[in-house]
Amino acid sequence: MTDYDNLGLKELVAKLEDSVLVVTLSSSEKPNLFHLALSEEIVRVFEMADLDDSVRAVVMTADPTSKAFCPGLSLTKGFPAGGLSGTPETNPYILAEPGGRVSKAIINCRKITIVAINGHLGGVGSTAMQLPFDIRFAWAGAKILFSFVRLGVNPEGLMTHFLPRLIGLSRANAIFLSGASPLYPTSPLLDGLYYQVFEKREDVFPAALAFAKELASSTSQTAVAMTKSLLWHSPIKGIEDVAAMESRTMSMLVQAPDSKEGARAFAERRAPRFEDKVSQIDTDWYPWWTKSKM
Amino acid sequence: MTDYDNLGLKELVAKLEDSVLVVTLSSSEKPNLFHLALSEEIVRVFEMADLDDSVRAVVMTADPTSKAFCPGLSLTKGFPAGGLSGTPETNPYILAEPGGRVSKAIINCRKITIVAINGHLGGVGSTAMQLPFDIRFAWAGAKILFSFVRLGVNPEGLMTHFLPRLIGLSRANAIFLSGASPLYPTSPLLDGLYYQVFEKREDVFPAALAFAKELASSTSQTAVAMTKSLLWHSPIKGIEDVAAMESRTMSMLVQAPDSKEGARAFAERRAPRFEDKVSQIDTDWYPWWTKSKM
Amino acid sequence: MTDYDNLGLKELVAKLEDSVLVVTLSSSEKPNLFHLALSEEIVRVFEMADLDDSVRAVVMTADPTSKAFCPGLSLTKGFPAGGLSGTPETNPYILAEPGGRVSKAIINCRKITIVAINGHLGGVGSTAMQLPFDIRFAWAGAKILFSFVRLGVNPEGLMTHFLPRLIGLSRANAIFLSGASPLYPTSPLLDGLYYQVFEKREDVFPAALAFAKELASSTSQTAVAMTKSLLWHSPIKGIEDVAAMESRTMSMLVQAPDSKEGARAFAERRAPRFEDKVSQIDTDWYPWWTKSKM
Repeated sequence: MTDYDNLGLKELVAKLEDSVLVVTLSSSEKPNLFHLALSEEIVRVFEMADLDDSVRAVVMTADPTSKAFCPGLSLTKGFPAGGLSGTPETNPYILAEPGGRVSKAIINCRKITIVAINGHLGGVGSTAMQLPFDIRFAWAGAKILFSFVRLGVNPEGLMTHFLPRLIGLSRANAIFLSGASPLYPTSPLLDGLYYQVFEKREDVFPAALAFAKELASSTSQTAVAMTKSLLWHSPIKGIEDVAAMESRTMSMLVQAPDSKEGARAFAERRAPRFEDKVSQIDTDWYPWWTKSKM
Repeated sequence: MTDYDNLGLKELVAKLEDSVLVVTLSSSEKPNLFHLALSEEIVRVFEMADLDDSVRAVVMTADPTSKAFCPGLSLTKGFPAGGLSGTPETNPYILAEPGGRVSKAIINCRKITIVAINGHLGGVGSTAMQLPFDIRFAWAGAKILFSFVRLGVNPEGLMTHFLPRLIGLSRANAIFLSGASPLYPTSPLLDGLYYQVFEKREDVFPAALAFAKELASSTSQTAVAMTKSLLWHSPIKGIEDVAAMESRTMSMLVQAPDSKEGARAFAERRAPRFEDKVSQIDTDWYPWWTKSKM
Repeated sequence: MTDYDNLGLKELVAKLEDSVLVVTLSSSEKPNLFHLALSEEIVRVFEMADLDDSVRAVVMTADPTSKAFCPGLSLTKGFPAGGLSGTPETNPYILAEPGGRVSKAIINCRKITIVAINGHLGGVGSTAMQLPFDIRFAWAGAKILFSFVRLGVNPEGLMTHFLPRLIGLSRANAIFLSGASPLYPTSPLLDGLYYQVFEKREDVFPAALAFAKELASSTSQTAVAMTKSLLWHSPIKGIEDVAAMESRTMSMLVQAPDSKEGARAFAERRAPRFEDKVSQIDTDWYPWWTKSKM
């Protein structure tokens, strides 16, 4: 079990509470601006949460004293030439932009990930900081800006690929190619993106945390891991591959203790006590997708 | 023309009526529980419907005396180790779970498939028994449970792949990773999934049947087959492949009698009389996807 | 800069106005029927708009005196055997149907494309003439017919592939396999497809044009080109490919003048003056998808 208090984190606070890792953004660049150090700490805690068996869900929110949840990069000095990671000369990983790395870390975290959006969003804040999560809770007053093409850049954080899949290519095209006015969680253009929307800013995080705790207490960690992997990394060559992969994961899960406990608890009308751990998954076919080092 | 009365079916009733095959679930395990024999009979009738030129549409519903449409597996003895199909030792097709086989049979049936949901759904009943259909009619009071991760298993029936495509990855993630309370056909989380929803349970099937009969009387069997194949098995390498495949199917169809009859009937403002049959399709490029024996 | 007045176009009018190319359909076959010559002129102007640096957005609409926006093909002589392009014997490009070619030209045009639907749609008018556009403005009274399977043909214009991606496979299946009655832009089955819907037919085009002009004056041409390419031609092998491609395009854009101007204008709270041109894009990895000659 990781000691989240002693990681030396400077851009966010991570605390484990009833199997839920709470990540509170508190960027050293106000108000919660995205920058390289912040992105590296986010990647680090989500990679830890992925591997730490004591974590069953992650809730990310912003320090409630911050005006914004994450308005993107500071643009006062312009976009960093060569990207946030450095220049082509100094950084061989130039092609791995921080927004994409953050999204990958959140998507590849095999625990349930929930974002509690209690402030405004812009730029990479509107993509990598909210869209890779499994479930989104949001404040109705949150302004959401997708201004990429108005700033001379393209959207990133894997979201030119995933926003069309999250809510459809029709809405995604309109969102990424227009962007004059801010959107809100209840905007028709974002229909389907938010699980629950709250009138009061201060209600978002407590609701998300309670939701996460209920899930942490009643879901199987290994079943969640396999379900998330199938959803975000669906084998795409055709129906036969999907059938084979779902059957493999199901075959593994029905032979493990959690599914037996799940069935027993269901029959006995009581809450289940799941004990299988992601670290115990040991097969030669998982993961079935390629991970890069970037 | 298949004699559906003499197939020796024990888990469902199949009857052909005005080119519509009506499949009524009447599982030997009450109330309409999913089990291996039921799944095999469903696969069998949909494979027959695919090949039987006298079938133009299929409507599946549940015996109206059953409390549930399909609540999934019986869990009183737990999930069957090694999956429903048997154990790894005794069954070489261990990787072809019944839910996936049912979904494949329905998706690969080249006739219009309609489900008339007149009762509650759970587990594989919520996936393989409703989602692979082309069109869903449902009772507003139907409880729909997606409890997979709360039981220690992953969703199946190809639906970790197709639910994100049916209604978007954002809603699919929330549906498959939460699941505390039942959903209903009018739940916002399921928006876009149901073609028509009825207040009265007994109104669902008659409406679905009338809809199916209208389609059976006015659609071309070969045009439906090609359209379904393109929708469910879209060539995914890129736009050029899609253009080539749509043009191939179109080229075949415009040279066949049905499109000539369709155009004539349209010009003469009368109902068409389509006579082309799926069994007559004879080209070396169809189907363009790989079918396994599993 | 292309002289659009002297192209000898007979089926449509193309005019450049404040960096917006306005394409007004005026088919020689009334009322705006789709036919080979019309399709070839549409392909031609969108291919020109793609290459012409003076174009930042394209708005396509129909001559307001026409009863229909585009009701599809004339069917009085039936579907042309061998497709619109000719017979297999006389045309080697038999597999490149005009609907697909129109859709490809619009999708591959790297400027923002907007359609202003001020009349009824049917057949290929409902697919290739509206669905490949980035953004759709429509008249609430526009009847939209998807009658393909009732005419003995399959839908085309790449839309068996893209309609499921635009608004979800669940709605796409129902739309393409039913089709008894006309739909309208506000039909629930088409939810998410239209950016803005107008009660008055004559309000559609002015609103679309004003919207296009605002975009033309405030978006970067190269950022739009890269964003559109990522949205419509997303690398589909997996997450790593998406991350690599978004990072490549971003890396290119942040080193170019437009992103510097975008950041400066944002910081100075003024409108940006973007000057980068699509014709200047010069890398060995773009485009990353294969284009055929068809």
